[in-house]
Amino acid sequence: MQIDRDDEIVILRLNRPDRLNAFTHEMGEEIKAALAVTDADDSVRAVVITGNGRAFCAGADLEAGADTFVHGETTPGVVPPDSGGQTALRIFDSLKPVVAAINGPAAGVGVTMTLPADARIASDDAKFGFVFTRRGLVPEACSSWFLPRLVGIPTALKWTYGGQMVSATEALDSGLVQQVVPKDQVVDTAIAVAREMTADSAPVSVALTRQLIWRMAGAPSPRDAHEADSKAIFVRGSMPDVAEGVTAFLEKRRAVFTDKVSSDLPEIF
Amino acid sequence: MQIDRDDEIVILRLNRPDRLNAFTHEMGEEIKAALAVTDADDSVRAVVITGNGRAFCAGADLEAGADTFVHGETTPGVVPPDSGGQTALRIFDSLKPVVAAINGPAAGVGVTMTLPADARIASDDAKFGFVFTRRGLVPEACSSWFLPRLVGIPTALKWTYGGQMVSATEALDSGLVQQVVPKDQVVDTAIAVAREMTADSAPVSVALTRQLIWRMAGAPSPRDAHEADSKAIFVRGSMPDVAEGVTAFLEKRRAVFTDKVSSDLPEIF
Amino acid sequence: MQIDRDDEIVILRLNRPDRLNAFTHEMGEEIKAALAVTDADDSVRAVVITGNGRAFCAGADLEAGADTFVHGETTPGVVPPDSGGQTALRIFDSLKPVVAAINGPAAGVGVTMTLPADARIASDDAKFGFVFTRRGLVPEACSSWFLPRLVGIPTALKWTYGGQMVSATEALDSGLVQQVVPKDQVVDTAIAVAREMTADSAPVSVALTRQLIWRMAGAPSPRDAHEADSKAIFVRGSMPDVAEGVTAFLEKRRAVFTDKVSSDLPEIF
Repeated sequence: MQIDRDDEIVILRLNRPDRLNAFTHEMGEEIKAALAVTDADDSVRAVVITGNGRAFCAGADLEAGADTFVHGETTPGVVPPDSGGQTALRIFDSLKPVVAAINGPAAGVGVTMTLPADARIASDDAKFGFVFTRRGLVPEACSSWFLPRLVGIPTALKWTYGGQMVSATEALDSGLVQQVVPKDQVVDTAIAVAREMTADSAPVSVALTRQLIWRMAGAPSPRDAHEADSKAIFVRGSMPDVAEGVTAFLEKRRAVFTDKVSSDLPEIF
Repeated sequence: MQIDRDDEIVILRLNRPDRLNAFTHEMGEEIKAALAVTDADDSVRAVVITGNGRAFCAGADLEAGADTFVHGETTPGVVPPDSGGQTALRIFDSLKPVVAAINGPAAGVGVTMTLPADARIASDDAKFGFVFTRRGLVPEACSSWFLPRLVGIPTALKWTYGGQMVSATEALDSGLVQQVVPKDQVVDTAIAVAREMTADSAPVSVALTRQLIWRMAGAPSPRDAHEADSKAIFVRGSMPDVAEGVTAFLEKRRAVFTDKVSSDLPEIF
Repeated sequence: MQIDRDDEIVILRLNRPDRLNAFTHEMGEEIKAALAVTDADDSVRAVVITGNGRAFCAGADLEAGADTFVHGETTPGVVPPDSGGQTALRIFDSLKPVVAAINGPAAGVGVTMTLPADARIASDDAKFGFVFTRRGLVPEACSSWFLPRLVGIPTALKWTYGGQMVSATEALDSGLVQQVVPKDQVVDTAIAVAREMTADSAPVSVALTRQLIWRMAGAPSPRDAHEADSKAIFVRGSMPDVAEGVTAFLEKRRAVFTDKVSSDLPEIF
């Protein structure tokens, strides 16, 4: 994987262009390792994930052919965790916003791993394939949880039952992607979106907000949110960021936040 | 109930046209029995539910008048299960996709029992009435779970509070139905939709996908999906369908899947 | 707070126009007290909440400056409940429908406390600010539960990360508000919407429907709804309202419901 920076934004570039960035176990590990770094580095405000070459990600690498999904040695009674799901959950747990810059076709895990991103910006030639049932598989990477919440149940069922390719336009209309732009503007647009999400916001507040919204999107009751956000408001209320945030607002100036995600993030769950 | 077939698609036709297909306990039992058959029959890929005559279903049969909803003998402390809900849950549990072909007005349980279908195709003269509060009742058949997930909370509240009739156009705009077509094309369109959902997909994969998406649409956490889909990917990975699916894809030919829902469906929940 | 009535509709008017109706602990207590009264008064069918003056509510009163969110004496280990959340949960628990008439700008708790309302009608000059991260805070008042369910996860994340102001048009397009009207028609429109929700419906049925839809919108399984609505249908089935509702329907006349929310509401949860 190639890792670039644009000031406070880190850009992760899937980098197997000759294989249309087909997903390997190693690629998943690299994404997880990169997010551990971006979480720990207070100079990083957000992460963009994109692909090098003409595709975003063609899905699981099928080089092993018919044996691709046969597991090697396993312990009886122990189910090996799905590799795409491990990657998706690591994105879900990121303390910094993540924006997917989908620069071309995305199939299988190539699209499902982007669902826990906070926004998906697509190239106008991007297309999306939830192709699992056509290979005898099922939607993985926790996509059965994410997809109906992003595009609604009927659309999620239609796409995952039939496995037909979905155009960028249909993806936009259904809410899968938030913007469609020309191919050469995908990364810049994703960076701009990531910047809008973070430029004027306290880093610790953004990290807590990311946890709150994603977790409460599945929680049974608003009382679950009340418990978590009461704790967050209580703890944050006496931290320097809030004093600065309120004072700056009253003085009509830009706030300068000093609390750090690496050291000052309250545990609220 | 009249039961027809169009090759691999079974068509269930509510068949009390003189009563606008008003729902009876017997009708619910017939739907449940029919779905037990379609689940067990590997030659069936999907199910269409429609109504004979000009209406889809006028709701609960009110022949008994004021006593319609008074239960007979019951055991103290035991709540008799709502009959519409039993039917809805059986559709929810179907191993084959279900498409509702709503050929005319649908009221009460006549619309709520269609909510667990995977798609709703409506005639342009269809209208929908969540009329429960106008009869002193409440939305039943688990519709308080399904409806806000299909049309959003504000629309679900509006329709169920006031009980006004909803036009086919409003139903389409709000996401209750997925297509509106002329009356004489409703069943054919539903069959075409059912076929797109299944034609190129492994039957066992479709059955697992149906369970995953519908169950995870309500699950608290993506980690619930990770547990279930890891198991599905692991078990399916070494089954014949995946070897065939991957090989066919690499050979650019149509896959021929041989695993059977009746005998090869893994337990993943 | 100013409290008015328009026949069966109670109108709560936030009444600190010189402070743009900035939210105080006292204002929260007044809303909670008013809803206790409207719940208990069978002559009240619905509640409208609006603001006096040009704003709806500017958010938490920041008169105390940097110390606004510092709690006074607290018991070690006990997290004081968020005041906005207590208000939001009281609206969530209302037995009568609640419609927010958002007559102008709404920021912070000024918008989040409206999310448990059943509909939001906005003035065309209204704007919405989920400004929490800009003050070092986090989205409160259970908004991490409500907002993604109303506008979808990506929009909820975008608005709460960046804290930019949202126009009435964007709020309408995203589903945050259900109607945008000229400023002088906001309250009348909200009253009309509240009337459509209740005029022809049994009060006990509306109260039960409100509980069912809001609670089941977060429940894990349709079987949760089946348990609750089976109980509701069973108990309501032998109550006078249903006999009247069915009879009136068969006689093609308007039903006159007599069961009372104050005394006849079954416990179904």
